Amino acid sequence: MQIPQPYLLFLGDVTDPLSAKTAKGVLHWRPELCTGQLRLNAETVSLGIADLSLQEAKLRGAKTLVIGTANAGGYIPQTWLQTLQEALERGFNIASGMHQRLTGFPSLVTAASIHQCKLFDVRHYDHPLRIGNGKPRPGKRLLTVGTDCSVGKMYASLALEKEMSRQGLNTHFRATGQTGILISGTGISVDAVVADFISGAAEQISAAFTDHDWDVIEGQGSLLNPSFAGVSLGLLHGSQPDALVLCHEIGRTHTRHLPHMPVPAIQATLDANYTAAKLTNSSAEFVGICLNTSAIDEEQAFTLCRQWEQEYNLPVTDPVRFGISCIVDKLHAI
Amino acid sequence: MQIPQPYLLFLGDVTDPLSAKTAKGVLHWRPELCTGQLRLNAETVSLGIADLSLQEAKLRGAKTLVIGTANAGGYIPQTWLQTLQEALERGFNIASGMHQRLTGFPSLVTAASIHQCKLFDVRHYDHPLRIGNGKPRPGKRLLTVGTDCSVGKMYASLALEKEMSRQGLNTHFRATGQTGILISGTGISVDAVVADFISGAAEQISAAFTDHDWDVIEGQGSLLNPSFAGVSLGLLHGSQPDALVLCHEIGRTHTRHLPHMPVPAIQATLDANYTAAKLTNSSAEFVGICLNTSAIDEEQAFTLCRQWEQEYNLPVTDPVRFGISCIVDKLHAI
Repeated sequence: MQIPQPYLLFLGDVTDPLSAKTAKGVLHWRPELCTGQLRLNAETVSLGIADLSLQEAKLRGAKTLVIGTANAGGYIPQTWLQTLQEALERGFNIASGMHQRLTGFPSLVTAASIHQCKLFDVRHYDHPLRIGNGKPRPGKRLLTVGTDCSVGKMYASLALEKEMSRQGLNTHFRATGQTGILISGTGISVDAVVADFISGAAEQISAAFTDHDWDVIEGQGSLLNPSFAGVSLGLLHGSQPDALVLCHEIGRTHTRHLPHMPVPAIQATLDANYTAAKLTNSSAEFVGICLNTSAIDEEQAFTLCRQWEQEYNLPVTDPVRFGISCIVDKLHAI
Repeated sequence: MQIPQPYLLFLGDVTDPLSAKTAKGVLHWRPELCTGQLRLNAETVSLGIADLSLQEAKLRGAKTLVIGTANAGGYIPQTWLQTLQEALERGFNIASGMHQRLTGFPSLVTAASIHQCKLFDVRHYDHPLRIGNGKPRPGKRLLTVGTDCSVGKMYASLALEKEMSRQGLNTHFRATGQTGILISGTGISVDAVVADFISGAAEQISAAFTDHDWDVIEGQGSLLNPSFAGVSLGLLHGSQPDALVLCHEIGRTHTRHLPHMPVPAIQATLDANYTAAKLTNSSAEFVGICLNTSAIDEEQAFTLCRQWEQEYNLPVTDPVRFGISCIVDKLHAI
């Protein structure tokens, strides 16, 4: 699966800036792939890039309309269908990270078929997969892991890819969730595959390679989150990472959506991932910790990073505030 | 989902005794549910019970025709369709543990609808599930875990259920795989659910209860099998077991289907499961080890069990050779 690029970012009629997180992520990490935005009315959230009609975007070379918004149910509003239909008629592919499938609308399926366009439901995965086998394969891999969901694993992965490339390491980002897939144009939502195939999906997402230096694989969930740990473990085994980076949010008091579960300790999270990673890669090692320190001020954050470096004997940084080069510096020796 | 019982065991035209494993399991653990067997010709494997026509089985009260065989691709042979069709016409439900779905045959779906019968594809699970939450829930639970797949977890679970009931503990077996589901008439194939829902499925398979003493939950895979560990971890977290029983096969040299992966050490398997189980049940403890000792003679097996009891400080038995009461004896104190 490769989503044709560049994109036109579709924002529908959403007015809550948080709902446009996906589109913002695509624009932040791949501005060169975004020809502009399409908003259904003047009240719609703006990304601060050119407002384009379907026709204008087509002239600028856009190949795929990306639904860059989220809502609570993950559904596609009826009021968007006319625009989506018109996009297909003008030859756009459509990519969506919504839970409700584009392919669940017969009218869109028919239009896509007539106009030879594709519908990409990146939150789902319907293609055949192999069972994972844990066999060592060529290529160096880094996986981000976390103390919880939504602690910055995708951000850290993309920041690592960027800094590694800057430091001369030829690096590919490998997406495992819907926003990451829209950013990279390819990948598999590992939490959406049938349970038997989690590690197999990871082996496919970052297959054997010899043509570049590193794959950076986007982590999902946490080994210590009881809702999703199975996904995290299969992803860890299938990724067989040489290098691990731990991600954590300062100030989070309990596991997301689970008030009865305290956030796990850093050392317990390092230990759990290190032990499990050894099963498929005996050389696996942690190379750094990324903190989301937005809950504290910059001076406190800087002090905390230095303290934790002493405590865990690893480079510690907030990639948003302090960059991520201190971690990448360690990768040249692996 | 509850598969109506009793059953007529369908053996098709299979001639390899190993292919009839599922039917043998159902007959071994639930002889009172098996009215007889239906074989398509004289060469078909026999379970040594009454050969019944559909009509005869119906007269004896059979409600569901159970496809009790397996083949390499998990497909339903065309040559069986006429019998399956006739079974529906006579008012039988059909249950299958095959990979290919009964509901994939439009003729069977139509006949089931006309005759108000149900098709149970127990290897699949298409109903809505909740995300697991790891909240403690009433009821005591035992989960079997293993050093690998196919080391006797289902056998140990059913042997435990039987012996626990004999010792006065009101116990329910909770099935997580196709043969177990056919035996108990209900359950979810946890390896077939979408990855995000593994622990949620386990929470549903053994929901909160106060009307009996124990649930014994059938384990799947192994935390140290890189093909399926995600399933095992989600099942462990969702089961939140009070008691764990480790299953292992003596003489296995490598992980099943993975010649490059040695079978993990017993202590490493105990440690991995114990540590992970603590996340959702701080009281989790191992209460015994079940060995499949068929590769060695009975005297050697007896000696080995005594040695391992010293080494791991747990009751150790081969449930087939020596029964499982030594483990159940420990459960009264939990």
